[in-house]
Amino acid sequence: MLLVTSGAVAFGKLTLSQALRLSMSMRETLIMKSGPPLETAKSSVGTSAAVGQSGLMALYDAMFNQFGVKIAQVLVTKPDFYNPESRSWLRQTLLELISLNILPIINTNDAVSSPTSQFEACVDGSQIQLISDNDALAAHLAAEAGADLMIMMSNVDGVYTLPPGQDGSSLLHTFSPSTRDRIVIGEKSNVGLGGMDSKIGAATWAVDRGVSAVICNGFKDGAITRIVKGEKVGTFFTQHETSSTSLENLSISAKNGSRALESLSGSERGAILRKLADLLLEKSDMLLEANAKDLQAAEACGLEESLLSRLSLDRTKLASLGDGIRSIAEKCEGDDILGKVNIRTLIADGIELQQITVPIGVLLVIFESRPDCLPQVASLAIATGNGLLLKGGKEAFHSNRALFYLVREALGQYNVQQAISLISTREDVDEILNVGKHIDLIIPRGSADLVRTIQQKSKGIPVLGHSEGVCHVYVDKDADFESAYDIVRDAKCDYPAACNAMETLLLHQDLIESDFFSTMCSILRKEGVTVNAGPRLSQRLTFGPPATQSLRTEYSRLECAIEVVDDVKQAITHINTYGSGHTDVIVTENVAAAEDFLRSVDSACVFHNASTRFADGYRFGLGAEVGISTGRIHARGPVGLEGLLTTKWQIRGSGDTVADFSKGKRKYKHEALPVSPDSDEFRRASAISADDS
Amino acid sequence: MLLVTSGAVAFGKLTLSQALRLSMSMRETLIMKSGPPLETAKSSVGTSAAVGQSGLMALYDAMFNQFGVKIAQVLVTKPDFYNPESRSWLRQTLLELISLNILPIINTNDAVSSPTSQFEACVDGSQIQLISDNDALAAHLAAEAGADLMIMMSNVDGVYTLPPGQDGSSLLHTFSPSTRDRIVIGEKSNVGLGGMDSKIGAATWAVDRGVSAVICNGFKDGAITRIVKGEKVGTFFTQHETSSTSLENLSISAKNGSRALESLSGSERGAILRKLADLLLEKSDMLLEANAKDLQAAEACGLEESLLSRLSLDRTKLASLGDGIRSIAEKCEGDDILGKVNIRTLIADGIELQQITVPIGVLLVIFESRPDCLPQVASLAIATGNGLLLKGGKEAFHSNRALFYLVREALGQYNVQQAISLISTREDVDEILNVGKHIDLIIPRGSADLVRTIQQKSKGIPVLGHSEGVCHVYVDKDADFESAYDIVRDAKCDYPAACNAMETLLLHQDLIESDFFSTMCSILRKEGVTVNAGPRLSQRLTFGPPATQSLRTEYSRLECAIEVVDDVKQAITHINTYGSGHTDVIVTENVAAAEDFLRSVDSACVFHNASTRFADGYRFGLGAEVGISTGRIHARGPVGLEGLLTTKWQIRGSGDTVADFSKGKRKYKHEALPVSPDSDEFRRASAISADDS
Repeated sequence: MLLVTSGAVAFGKLTLSQALRLSMSMRETLIMKSGPPLETAKSSVGTSAAVGQSGLMALYDAMFNQFGVKIAQVLVTKPDFYNPESRSWLRQTLLELISLNILPIINTNDAVSSPTSQFEACVDGSQIQLISDNDALAAHLAAEAGADLMIMMSNVDGVYTLPPGQDGSSLLHTFSPSTRDRIVIGEKSNVGLGGMDSKIGAATWAVDRGVSAVICNGFKDGAITRIVKGEKVGTFFTQHETSSTSLENLSISAKNGSRALESLSGSERGAILRKLADLLLEKSDMLLEANAKDLQAAEACGLEESLLSRLSLDRTKLASLGDGIRSIAEKCEGDDILGKVNIRTLIADGIELQQITVPIGVLLVIFESRPDCLPQVASLAIATGNGLLLKGGKEAFHSNRALFYLVREALGQYNVQQAISLISTREDVDEILNVGKHIDLIIPRGSADLVRTIQQKSKGIPVLGHSEGVCHVYVDKDADFESAYDIVRDAKCDYPAACNAMETLLLHQDLIESDFFSTMCSILRKEGVTVNAGPRLSQRLTFGPPATQSLRTEYSRLECAIEVVDDVKQAITHINTYGSGHTDVIVTENVAAAEDFLRSVDSACVFHNASTRFADGYRFGLGAEVGISTGRIHARGPVGLEGLLTTKWQIRGSGDTVADFSKGKRKYKHEALPVSPDSDEFRRASAISADDS
Repeated sequence: MLLVTSGAVAFGKLTLSQALRLSMSMRETLIMKSGPPLETAKSSVGTSAAVGQSGLMALYDAMFNQFGVKIAQVLVTKPDFYNPESRSWLRQTLLELISLNILPIINTNDAVSSPTSQFEACVDGSQIQLISDNDALAAHLAAEAGADLMIMMSNVDGVYTLPPGQDGSSLLHTFSPSTRDRIVIGEKSNVGLGGMDSKIGAATWAVDRGVSAVICNGFKDGAITRIVKGEKVGTFFTQHETSSTSLENLSISAKNGSRALESLSGSERGAILRKLADLLLEKSDMLLEANAKDLQAAEACGLEESLLSRLSLDRTKLASLGDGIRSIAEKCEGDDILGKVNIRTLIADGIELQQITVPIGVLLVIFESRPDCLPQVASLAIATGNGLLLKGGKEAFHSNRALFYLVREALGQYNVQQAISLISTREDVDEILNVGKHIDLIIPRGSADLVRTIQQKSKGIPVLGHSEGVCHVYVDKDADFESAYDIVRDAKCDYPAACNAMETLLLHQDLIESDFFSTMCSILRKEGVTVNAGPRLSQRLTFGPPATQSLRTEYSRLECAIEVVDDVKQAITHINTYGSGHTDVIVTENVAAAEDFLRSVDSACVFHNASTRFADGYRFGLGAEVGISTGRIHARGPVGLEGLLTTKWQIRGSGDTVADFSKGKRKYKHEALPVSPDSDEFRRASAISADDS
């Protein structure tokens, strides 16, 4: 490690001002107190540096000494770099210090050489480069010593696209040659603080010579350790081009693409979807080939069997994917998705108000290994006229790329390819969210962990989804036992990893000592379900199942908790306390109890005498499923296409002002008008009539 | 300033390990390298302290020296506190050092006295208190020296309700005696890190003796400076009780209150509203008296005229408030708000699915000076069955309290007072958002600044509102000029401070050199509107208005920008680029251009030949207005009561499992059923029929 430091001049000025004060007479001191603050500007930089250098080194010495690190002071001047002999001597000294585990602390010798006069250094035997400040000095020393990494510490967090704090400014995590071109040419005067320009220059200079560089905030805790660990701190300079700089462009394209899609008719969007469905079959060889590559890589990595089966595509899966997409196309061609009139009001004669459906804008969908998610999500976006950024798992890299190729081909029919982009798997979610101002909704499709991470990081962009599914089945004392057995078995065992699988079975207290309880337990045992007892059940049983750790556990496998409750009221309270608001079920023949449960359980889905597993867009008959949301606004429970739509208010008037109404010249009518089914024709017609009036 | 420091022992151990290594033979060193790491545990604490003390002081000396601060080392032992003579001597020494501007750095003299044996100190002449560590030592010294403030620096941010990082743990900004009771009794073992207990003990001990105390994270930048400035850093210990600890309870009450409200019938909720409307008139004397207090205080502070008029209540305002609330009551009594069936589907024989409307849950409404907001918002919450936390501006303290008293009285009819709480004006929004897990939606009603702040701080809780209203009027070449004059005048001048007032006037290029332009400008001048020219207009005019700073400015007063565009396409692009998605208008007689504009402008409200000022819930005929949202999900534009509702899916089945369907035993029907208007009766009937099947 080499340390290049500033600060000697500043420290020296402080000492000088004290010395100056001590050398003043009492009278001078008194005058000064009421006069202007003591200035040492007249002291030369050289004097200040000479005075400050010793203090600075004493401070470093005392600090490093506490950690047993020995330091050495190295003051350099211009000739040290000019003269090949002294250059080599300096190099030898530094390398030797490093080999002795002594930390060289390097500063320019401002006492003997002006720091403001730029000096030239000869590096690589041929190139002449001006060394104007410590940033450039550090870059030269790093190159000279063959350093792996140069860390430049500033008081800002790194390089920003615009001055930090300004609206729209965002921190660049990586800085590649193209970034430099973009910033320098486009917005040179806007680049961060004054000193940032020279830091960027020094960093790119070092990168060109094989030294990696990071510009970070030196005031941030543990910056060096975190950078060395590979965490994303500050701005990392690299010669590799990343797409991070273009992420913002992709989202702008998606926005424009959304507008282009919206301007197509429903049957045109339907045609894109039908084309995509056809391509999935026509190009199935290509798809399966790409998928085979992913499967091979996954097997080599030792991916679990269940994950492998999610990753794999086959002709049956492709055919059913195509069928699903054709059914979305059908909905599209009904022309009932976009521009549908929800509300139509005659505000007053000649002023007609309409609320119509429009796309939300740009969706970011993040999905894990399952590649079949890609064409499904793309179809939903196309049907609803939304722009889409897709980020798939890296396990499905080849499959996703092949599928995306087909999506683009289908979009090409109407030249709206820009609406959908596949984001490189290398980009992490943080980076995407940093350019998130053009993203209107995030839909994470995958594990609870993925969703939770996205929800926490979303930075105010709405997230549609559910992180947990702690679903309950409550069996009432008035339950039909056969129904209860069937429903509990189905809810837990049909697909234990699903979010709508049962995690906790609540039993009415009267059932505990009945045959029902032992039969229920033996059914679960036969299915291989591990049972955990809730605290109250544990108390009731002398030799019961082991006690559960928490009543909020989502087991997601053949395991569940059983707890006992006094009655339906306590079951409701239990679910509202420990549940995740996903899906909860009562099994009873008592209609009053059932209605109480249906009304009072505060979950997205509440069922009477039916399995939790019915909570699903397809089973609900919503056609395409966007996902299941446990959020309380916009959409809740299984979400169909309407979850990807918002509304817009339109008024068609005839030169109207509100002043006429507030002054009493005109009166509001607020007459609800019938909503015509054929919205497009209808809008045009009504526009013309409004116009004529 | 006094500094109590730790670290001598740790520093000493480091030095000792080096000394130990130097005293080893080469063979021992080699064995050690492959053996266990060098341990100095056998060195006594006293030895380590003796060795480390000098190094620690050297480090402090070097650091403070750079800032010209002189330090003095003070090592204390048990007898120094026992013996009244030495106590007084110590006190004198410390005070003298402070008066000489020398910083005393105090540590226990661990070389001569064991730090682990607790020693007793006699303070205030009578009280005996155990000094077991540096925390207690600091507290004693602070009391002894009569310090104003004691800052205890830790490696955690302060005192948490649960161990930091654990789900549900939140930082306490203030810690009052009742907090201590709650934490110590309820969750003693859960209080943060090991050392936090002793810090809390020391801090409360100091607070009892008139010293304020803060526990903060010493690693955070500028912690001391920020604390002294009065910023909220760490946990502040005070003897004053605050309601912060009960905020979470208030939100839980609101949740329970929401459930209670929901269980009332629509006519019962309507009765609460009618009672509230009556109370506003009956108790108007009391209200006006409270309001007078606020007005008096505001005048004394020199509040602006416009703010004073917002703050003031009068009988006319109260009467119209009452009328508004009665019209909400009417909607309520229609029983069409909660439990309304949106979708009804026969999934298969015996399985019926319904989507019904339910309350969102708990709303947090933050409003500024206007007290009439309180009964309006409360009425909307009551009508929709939502719990409500109200936070009003401190200018309206007395008025809000009086109005809230009436709301509670009205709620008392059905014993559902817990649904609505008024939060003390002292609590800042941060603190409320910290306990935000029970809050489902935030509605800020007030200035753009307020809304923007809330949106940034909302921590993932959805915010319904709009921070900006940069509204445009585009006058096309085919405009009816008289309409254009009227609409522009209305849009800018009817109420310039409104969010739906025009900020930018876009003109078709053909109009610039016509009479229209000069007439338009003179109309605006006559109304007192200051005009700024956009860049393109500036270029066109030799002597034009001054150039605008930004095309995104929301002037909110009699001022606007004028810019020229080529055609309707460019107007659309301009608005989609610089607008805020609130309300935008086209004035034209060309229906094709108008339809293009209505379709392509991506704003919540897009109007043809009508003033921007129509964007308003009342003018739209929505009845009560919750607010105007520029968000793209849940609700957009003027939002009526439905913005405070969400949905819930219910299934009424007959013991059904999905396995029967996936195994092919049964088939899905997905038959849309008619939605009955009288939802409550209908639900019950259908439940029974499903049950019988």
